[in-house]
Formats: sequence, C-alpha cells, structure tokens
Amino acid sequence: MVTKLALLGAGRIGRVHARAIAQDKRAKLVCVVDAVADAAKSIADSTGCAVSTIDAVEADGNIDAVIICTPTNTHADLIERFSMAGKAIFCEKPIDLDVARARACAETVSKTGAKVMLGFNRRFDPHFRAVRKAIDDGRIGDVEMVTIISRDPGPPPADYIKVSGGIFRDMTIHDFDMARFLLREEIASVMASGSVLVDPKIRALGDYDSASVILTTASGRQCVISNSRRASYGYDQRIEVHGSLGSIAAENQRPVSIELATKEGFTRPPLHDFFMTRYTAAYAAEISVFIDSLETGSAPSPSVEDGLAALALADAALRSVREQKIIPV
Amino acid sequence: MVTKLALLGAGRIGRVHARAIAQDKRAKLVCVVDAVADAAKSIADSTGCAVSTIDAVEADGNIDAVIICTPTNTHADLIERFSMAGKAIFCEKPIDLDVARARACAETVSKTGAKVMLGFNRRFDPHFRAVRKAIDDGRIGDVEMVTIISRDPGPPPADYIKVSGGIFRDMTIHDFDMARFLLREEIASVMASGSVLVDPKIRALGDYDSASVILTTASGRQCVISNSRRASYGYDQRIEVHGSLGSIAAENQRPVSIELATKEGFTRPPLHDFFMTRYTAAYAAEISVFIDSLETGSAPSPSVEDGLAALALADAALRSVREQKIIPV
Amino acid sequence: MVTKLALLGAGRIGRVHARAIAQDKRAKLVCVVDAVADAAKSIADSTGCAVSTIDAVEADGNIDAVIICTPTNTHADLIERFSMAGKAIFCEKPIDLDVARARACAETVSKTGAKVMLGFNRRFDPHFRAVRKAIDDGRIGDVEMVTIISRDPGPPPADYIKVSGGIFRDMTIHDFDMARFLLREEIASVMASGSVLVDPKIRALGDYDSASVILTTASGRQCVISNSRRASYGYDQRIEVHGSLGSIAAENQRPVSIELATKEGFTRPPLHDFFMTRYTAAYAAEISVFIDSLETGSAPSPSVEDGLAALALADAALRSVREQKIIPV
Amino acid sequence: MVTKLALLGAGRIGRVHARAIAQDKRAKLVCVVDAVADAAKSIADSTGCAVSTIDAVEADGNIDAVIICTPTNTHADLIERFSMAGKAIFCEKPIDLDVARARACAETVSKTGAKVMLGFNRRFDPHFRAVRKAIDDGRIGDVEMVTIISRDPGPPPADYIKVSGGIFRDMTIHDFDMARFLLREEIASVMASGSVLVDPKIRALGDYDSASVILTTASGRQCVISNSRRASYGYDQRIEVHGSLGSIAAENQRPVSIELATKEGFTRPPLHDFFMTRYTAAYAAEISVFIDSLETGSAPSPSVEDGLAALALADAALRSVREQKIIPV
Repeated sequence: MVTKLALLGAGRIGRVHARAIAQDKRAKLVCVVDAVADAAKSIADSTGCAVSTIDAVEADGNIDAVIICTPTNTHADLIERFSMAGKAIFCEKPIDLDVARARACAETVSKTGAKVMLGFNRRFDPHFRAVRKAIDDGRIGDVEMVTIISRDPGPPPADYIKVSGGIFRDMTIHDFDMARFLLREEIASVMASGSVLVDPKIRALGDYDSASVILTTASGRQCVISNSRRASYGYDQRIEVHGSLGSIAAENQRPVSIELATKEGFTRPPLHDFFMTRYTAAYAAEISVFIDSLETGSAPSPSVEDGLAALALADAALRSVREQKIIPV
Repeated sequence: MVTKLALLGAGRIGRVHARAIAQDKRAKLVCVVDAVADAAKSIADSTGCAVSTIDAVEADGNIDAVIICTPTNTHADLIERFSMAGKAIFCEKPIDLDVARARACAETVSKTGAKVMLGFNRRFDPHFRAVRKAIDDGRIGDVEMVTIISRDPGPPPADYIKVSGGIFRDMTIHDFDMARFLLREEIASVMASGSVLVDPKIRALGDYDSASVILTTASGRQCVISNSRRASYGYDQRIEVHGSLGSIAAENQRPVSIELATKEGFTRPPLHDFFMTRYTAAYAAEISVFIDSLETGSAPSPSVEDGLAALALADAALRSVREQKIIPV
Repeated sequence: MVTKLALLGAGRIGRVHARAIAQDKRAKLVCVVDAVADAAKSIADSTGCAVSTIDAVEADGNIDAVIICTPTNTHADLIERFSMAGKAIFCEKPIDLDVARARACAETVSKTGAKVMLGFNRRFDPHFRAVRKAIDDGRIGDVEMVTIISRDPGPPPADYIKVSGGIFRDMTIHDFDMARFLLREEIASVMASGSVLVDPKIRALGDYDSASVILTTASGRQCVISNSRRASYGYDQRIEVHGSLGSIAAENQRPVSIELATKEGFTRPPLHDFFMTRYTAAYAAEISVFIDSLETGSAPSPSVEDGLAALALADAALRSVREQKIIPV
Repeated sequence: MVTKLALLGAGRIGRVHARAIAQDKRAKLVCVVDAVADAAKSIADSTGCAVSTIDAVEADGNIDAVIICTPTNTHADLIERFSMAGKAIFCEKPIDLDVARARACAETVSKTGAKVMLGFNRRFDPHFRAVRKAIDDGRIGDVEMVTIISRDPGPPPADYIKVSGGIFRDMTIHDFDMARFLLREEIASVMASGSVLVDPKIRALGDYDSASVILTTASGRQCVISNSRRASYGYDQRIEVHGSLGSIAAENQRPVSIELATKEGFTRPPLHDFFMTRYTAAYAAEISVFIDSLETGSAPSPSVEDGLAALALADAALRSVREQKIIPV
C-alpha cells in the first residue's frame, strides 16, 4: 500500500523533500500547498502532483500524512490542526521558537495520539548514523564526552536572523539534538559563552555569532559544542564521541576528494558549501524513515518531545550567556 | 525536445543506466530489450517503458538512440547495425575482444557517420574529473608521470573469466583509457608483467590475476599501472598525476567517513565494495554527457577510436607478458 | 662563552633536561643535585658532570643558572633562594599549587630582577609553534575561537593525584597556558564542568578525571578545553585555532606513520604513549630557548607571570565546578 | 667494552655518522680522516677525536672498525684494504659503480671473512621497518606486489650526475634494495622506462631524470618503482606492500603536522626537503645496528651481497632502457 502525502510549503526545503518522496516507491506525493502560487506550481509540474490548499488537504480523507515545510511561526498551528485531523505529520524543526507554545502543541499531539516526526536531519546523515551505530555496538565502551564543532560558511542575512530566534534556537539546536542523540542521557546543566566576532550587525539584533556550550548530564557525561557563523573553508560539521574504550569521530565532508601537492604544500578542496549539499543523503533518509514508521506503526523518532528538549536547552544556553550563570535544566 | 532512448540489455549495468535516464529530464526511455523476458519486464515495470525487440527498435523511426548493455560478443554487431539504422549509440566497453573485429566496426561507424560513445565510466567520476580539470588548469604544469593503482575486491567467477578476454582486456582496459585521458599523448611502447598470485584456477584458464604495466609516450611521459584481482579492504581505485609543478591525486572512496580510535589504533572503514557503489555518480554523469552530445551535436567522447586505442594497449600488454618483450605500439 | 648550569632534581624530567643540555654546545652541565644519591650519580656518570648540593650550587659563583626539576612543593622556595643568589632559573611548572604562595614568589623574583623561565614545554613543540607562527603571519586573520583536546593515556597513581593539586592545576594548566599563548588576550571568565567517569578512586580523593572548560576574553574570544585522564589510543594532544580567514590545526602525533588496510578497514597505529615521547623535541627546544634568552639578555618566556596566570585560571575552573558558577577572572 | 671507530671521510654524510656515534655509548670515535684538512678538523673539534690518516688507521691495532664515507670511487679499494687489515667495515653504498669491480671486492671480503655492512639507510627508517615488521608478523598475508614512489625535490648538479653512475645506480639503487628487503625473494626480470622530462642537460650527460621500473620474481611477485628527479612538494618517499590479506603503506613525512583551512582549501606543509632531514632517525639507527652486529657477532646486514644485488638490478634496468628489452637477471 502506498502512503499518500501532502507537502505544505514549496520553498527550498520543500523541494528537497518532494525529490526524496519521488524516489521512494512506498510513498506518493498527492498535492502541494504554498501561499506563493508559482512555487507550488513548480513542484506540481516536476512531480506530477496537484496544487491544493490547507483546507482541502485537511478535508481529504485520502491523504495519510503531511510534510510541513512552512515558515517556523506556522509549525505549531499546523501540527495541532493536522493532529486533530488524524493525519500523520513530518514537520521541520523547530516546533516553535517559544517553548511554552511548543509545549502546548506537544500536549495537543499527545491527546490526539497523532504520529509526529520532527525534522532533525542530521540524525539521518550516514556518517553520524555510523557513529551512533559504533556506540550502540559497544565499540567505544561507555560514552563519556561528546565534542561537536559546527560552523556555518557565513552569517545569514539580517532579515533571517530577526525571525530566527537567535543562534541557540536556530543553529545550536541541531547540536543540542545531536548531543542528546549521542549521549543518550538527559542534560542536567547548561553553561554557555556567546559573543559577536563576525558581524557587528548581529550584535545590533541582540544575537551572537560565536558560541561555546558545555552540557553536563546527571551522571557527569559532558558535551562541548563550538559554533561560529563563519568558516572560510566551508560547512564545518564534526562530531567526536569519547568513551571508556576509545573514540569515534565523523570527519568533514567535501564534494571531491582530491589532493594537490605543490611547493605551497598539500591541498584538499574546501568542504561542502552548506547544508543542502552536505546533508543530501540525510534529507532523503529522513523521509524514508518517516514512511517506515508509518508502515510499521512504530513511534516516529525524533519525536515532538525531542524537539521540546532541544528547545529547552537552547533557552537555557541563552539564559546562561545573558545572566552569566550555569543553568540547571 | 526530449531524446527517445531504447535500452538493449536489462542486466545489472542496464538497470544502472535505466535509473540514470529516469533522472534526466531531457531523455525518455521508450523501451527495453532483453533475451530474458523477466529482466526486461522488471525494468519496464519500474520505469514505465515498453518491452520491445531489436528488430522493432531498429525499425522505429521515433527512437533517437540506443544504449547497448548486452554481452560483449554482441557489441560490434549491434553498433554496426544501429549505425546503419541511423541511431545514435551509447555502448558499454569494449567494442569487441578482437582488435581486428573492433577495427572493422570502427570503420563502419566512420562510414555511416553515426554518433557512438563508449562507456568508459571512470572518465565521468567526479574525483577523476577534478584531477583532469586541475591538469587542464595548469595546476601541476606539464604532465610527466601517471600512477594508477586499480584492484578489485576479489576475482570474478571462472565463467566470467573465460569470456572476459583476460585481465588486460577486461580490467586493465579501464586503466589504459584513464592513462590516455590523463597523459593526453598517444602511447609509444608497452611493457608488462603478469602472474597468478591470487587463484590457481586463473592460471588454468590462461589468464593472470596480478599485473604491472609501464606505458611510455613518444616524448617520454610514463604511466605505471598496478592491478590485482584481490584487495581485502575493498575496491582500490587510485590515480596520481605528477607534473613539473606538482602532483594531483584522487583518493580512495568509502561509504562512510568515520574513524574509530582504540588501543589497536585509528581505523577507518573499508572502501566501497565494488564498481556499482564506487562509480554511482560516474554512471549517472556519463549518460548525461551522452545526452549533452546529442543535444549539442558535439562529437561523443570517449569515442570508438578511444575504445580501439585502449584495446590495442591491452593486446600489447598481453604480448609483452607472453613474449617477454617491450612492445612498440 | 659557555653557560654553566646546575641541575636540581635528577628524576625523569631531570634526565630529559640533562640530555638536552648535552646537545647544546652553548651550555655545560657543571653539576647535578638530588636527595637520592643514585639518581644524581647516574646523571653525573652519563654526562661527566659532578654531584653537588643545593648549598654548594648557591655558593658557586661560577654557575650561571639552575634548572629546577625537584618536586612541586620545593619550586617556590628554590626560585626565591636562587633569585636572591643571582642565578638565572629555569623551573618546571607550576611555581606552587597555592596561588598566594606563587604570587609571593613572583614578587621576590620581581624584586631581585632574576631571570626566571617557566617550563611550559608545549609552547616549544614544533607543531604548536607552527600553529602560532601561522597566526602571527596572519594566515587565519583575527583569532576567534580556540579548541584544545588534551587527554592522558591513563590516570596517574593515587599517590600522585594526592599531591597534584587536582586535574585543573596538574593537567589543564598546560591547556590554560596554551589558550593564553594562542588567544593573546587575557581571560575574563571561566566556566567548567568536572566529573569522575574514569576511576571512582579519583572521586574519593576529591578530584575529577573528566573536565570541560570554556574561557572567554574581554573581547569575546572563546577557548574550549576538553580533558580526560583516559584515552585508550594514546596521548591525545590536539589544538585548533579558528579565525576570521580560516583555521589552523595541529594534528596528533604517532611514533610511526604507517597504515594497514585489511577487511577490517584502514588502521594507523596508536599515538605516542605519553609526554616523554610526544614532547621530546619540545623539551630539547625549551632548554635551547632558555640559553638563548641568557645569551641575548632577552626576557625569559614563558615567565613567572605566565605561570601565575595559568594557575589563577586553574583555581577559577575548580571554583566554577564546585560552586556551579561562572567565575570572572 | 667500547667499540673504537675511525671515520674515513668528513663530508656531509660523515658528519651525520659522527653525530650518531657520539650518541651511542657503546662506541667511541677515535679519529677522523679526510683529504680536506678543515673538514676533518671540524669533526675532530666537535667530537673530541683525533685527526688521522688512512695509513695510521690501518696500522692502529686499537681501532676495531672503520666507517667509510669517502667518494664512491674509493669504496672498493678501502673495503678491500681494511678487510685485509682485519677491521670491521661500515661503508656507504655503493661498493662501486662497476659491477665487476664490486664483485671482485665482494670476493676479497669473503676470503678475509671481514664483517662488512653496506649503508642502505632506508632499511633503518622507523616507518619502513614498521612496514617490514607488519609483513613479518603476517598482517598482510603473502606478499604479492610492492609499489615504491621515490622522487627527489630537484635534480643534482651536473658535476654530481657525471660521476653518479646514472639515475639507476645512484637513485633507484635504494629502491632496488627496498624491493629486495620487502619482497624477500630474488628478482628474476627487470623492465624499465627512462626519459628526460626535467632537465635537458641530463640528456646531454647520457642520463635520465624520470624512470619507471617493474621487477618480477621467479614466483611472479611484482614491484613497481616510480622515480623522478623533481618534486615541487619535497622529498617524496612512499612504500606500499600489497598481500593476500591486505596492504601496508608508509606515508610521506613532513617536518610539522599542521593543517591550514581557508577558502582555498585544507593545506598541509610540504614534505621534508631531502634525505638529511627525512632520514635522520634512519642514519642514527643504522650505526647502532652496525655496533649491535659487532657486539653480538651476528652477520652485518645489509651485506656486501645485498650491495651487489642492487647494483646488478641497476645495470639491468639501464640495459632495459637502452636496448628496449626485458632483462632476465
């Protein structure tokens, strides 16, 4: 039986998911919805699906699930609405920038019993999955310390920053999720340093562009996160987990693996230019896992609770910087 | 305008090309032909194309080009037949195991003026293309010496070896083509060493499983090729070009880039298991380049002449081993 | 003119310095002092120097400088005594485990005008020096974030831990010095997480075996330090500095650079087993730099003030863990 | 008991050995001999040994062994003379450029029963030794194919080339010795390509600057050697041995292991500038092994026979290029 999907939001990430759906024979994209008619039409044309509306999707008993790729401030409303409509839901992170609103949404989901999966794409990156598998296989013994280095090639435009919720809710949130994914124990305290070293405009917006965070679990496991909004050499995405028997690390990725040797030295090319090229395989895999969970009836993961937990860590990090305190969670 | 294609041969490599065609909007797979009905049907079902016959494809004025993935001993016949039928042709290497037969086929192609591209997939690997681009951009100055290390994970079955034409025509032929692609000067002499170190059954078949070759051009440029039918660590595919200003190398590829550190040391996973996973991107790119050449009217490359040249080098290498002589080409 | 040196302390590190002196033609080891007669005699025999006493060295107008490698609790006393005796001094870190005692010692040094160099050996490691040089040469632009990963192969014996002053004063102190060396701006705040994940005996001693620290400067530069008393794969010593134009990293070091490829993957050997083998070149270089500073009359570096600053950061880190606060410095 | 040594030849390599002897407590450099008085005096001054003459060394019953670092054309004479004088001998490679003369010398050595070790320094490089040890430990199973890439940073001066015996006897000879060291089976045939791609002056001298060689043993094991007299990126010295269970490779070496990441990519520094810095540890180790063999009475290795075998391969390679034939050995 083929799962019938509606795509809400036909922007950049919507197109990525449309392509992933097209390659999975177990799913069929029935229709696409977007306030911008041309965006919706473009996806409809290339995939052969219909253009529709939110209301029509909600009313269509034939549609099994929705893929929510609309702006962040619509996520909680749409999750609630389609939970109540009995649809399964895949929603891009975050649930909402406001933790109270996100929590309310989670309660609605819980009441309706809807299946909701959050789009933390990095969990599905093959390299990071291999790291997690090595841990699960006992290759490094007990997990003790996680190191995450995550740097964007360059800062986003000011308009984006204004609605982003700040570096911790927008960028570090992925690292908070990875920390939980790899530590497998809840975080007990958060301490963070934030500053503006890249672009003074970011300071004017009340945000930071450089941040370091230490997460500590109740049993004393530690995770260190290092973030910057600028990396001249490409999208820097490294993870290393240190355990009682050894360490496992995922290396940075580049489009081509060549090395030039000259009198200047030995040079390999810069890394991927950003997440769309770096996480191509992850985006395809996460939709496939969503379909899996619908087919098998297993609980979708990462869940709404995972989304809430990452958001709470982001809020704690922000408080730590602003109040210059270590924040218990 | 969409290019209409017929696929001849629905085996493993046929399926690879069918998938590549499905992803290129400029082309449409119209039908598939195979002596094994189930194989043809399977591709027809997954791509929505028809099942057809050689005769029907030949007669169908609507079909622009054929993709030949049938057994090697049918290549020359099919190339000639469809050249005369006015179709463009993409054919898997080699043209034929017999150089005289291949040369006759090339003459037919030349007379008919048909567009024929040979499937030397490695030329389209993004890493090797980046090597070639670095050379073309002058990054290493004048090319002086090429080193190719090419090792299969394990020997093919005896039945395959019997019809393969031997290691030089079956395996090294790719390296001969890469040597010409990177040296950009014709080979003037060939010397080779061949032996059986992996499997005595290969000796019984009159073939070799381990080979080393030196190619020298008229101006004295050299290429060294090292081949083995066995590599415990995966599909070993390395290329390095040394020039007056430096060297450029393409590194081996693996499915995931992680590193485990334990008391045994630092371990990265084995390489890709074989060509289907190692050269996925190359197979997709070569069909795309074939469509390009049809759309733009440019000469297909690699050409039938490239196929002939690689085959002649394979024959020379075999003679070098058998006669213990350096063979001028 | 040859600089005449007395070696105080003939233990493991004393022997390292004796060897370094023997290889520098500008210096001559005149005598060695140790409470353990055999230890002193062993160095005397192998270098051809005399065995002496503290008093005799102090009284000997012929001796230009002393190399202090005695136990930590004697450092401050010996520095003061030989400062007043008009000798130049090279002293192993730390000055003292107590910051007030160390400060008093620094004042004595300042009053006497004695030349005192502290033995932060890592500053002289050729790889770390090359990192610093790249920064000084402007290769990475403005320094923004420093990442230091520093892990011992295994925990020291309980007897050592008891007198070590704890992980921050014993182990992290090197990283604090490197942070200052690379950031080139004083630290404004310290936050740290410490826990016992390796050995419960360490908890019983009131110490930690796993620690993460964030240092922030007044201008917002950040340094993240990750420490563990256990690394199955050897002595893990990595440094990376991220700047406005790029990053520069010093890789881990191993005794031999080979790679074994098998069906298990590609394996390089473990790292150096500890500091004696990892920092061989650094130990030789620091004595050479000490002689340089005596010959040229330049101020010794790292100085007593550098020692004090690193110790103050260690104290702040310990307070941060114990009081669960971010500590301004 | 301390072994008493005389150093014959106080040039660059003589100084290297003098330093190695100074660091080995089991040996004592008694005197140095050189036609250039200043050169001898310089070593005598720095090591505290005497300046002497060949005749005096020969007559001095107190001297156990000689280290021969004089010009190549004196090697055979000195080996014979000191063999007959009952001294042990360490001699820099080669015995002689003429294989007949070298063979005659070997016979004299054999008759006198003198202990003679040849200075093939690469056998003592810790990385290459680790490769050999991995083979001996069975880590790669049966050895099948050896790949040696060996490139000098730049061509030697014309005056050196004139007396060098040509690229095969001067440069490739080290690779021939390594091939024998790693294959552990005698070579049965040699085929080679030689050309002038670097400097036309080398052609005028009848020599080559770029060479590729294939060595084959009786059982079919193969070794490929790639040589160039120019490598912009430093002294390129790589070895890889492929076997039935896997491969083992020794990586290139550089003075510092740092990596700079910028928008141009990820760059590590060039390699060592030449053999004096690349093989520092090897030079020290080979003298130590020579002393070992004198102390234990074991047969020195590499032996005069190893020197003869490498020279014979060099002659065969030259014949292969000149006569365009595969040469049986």
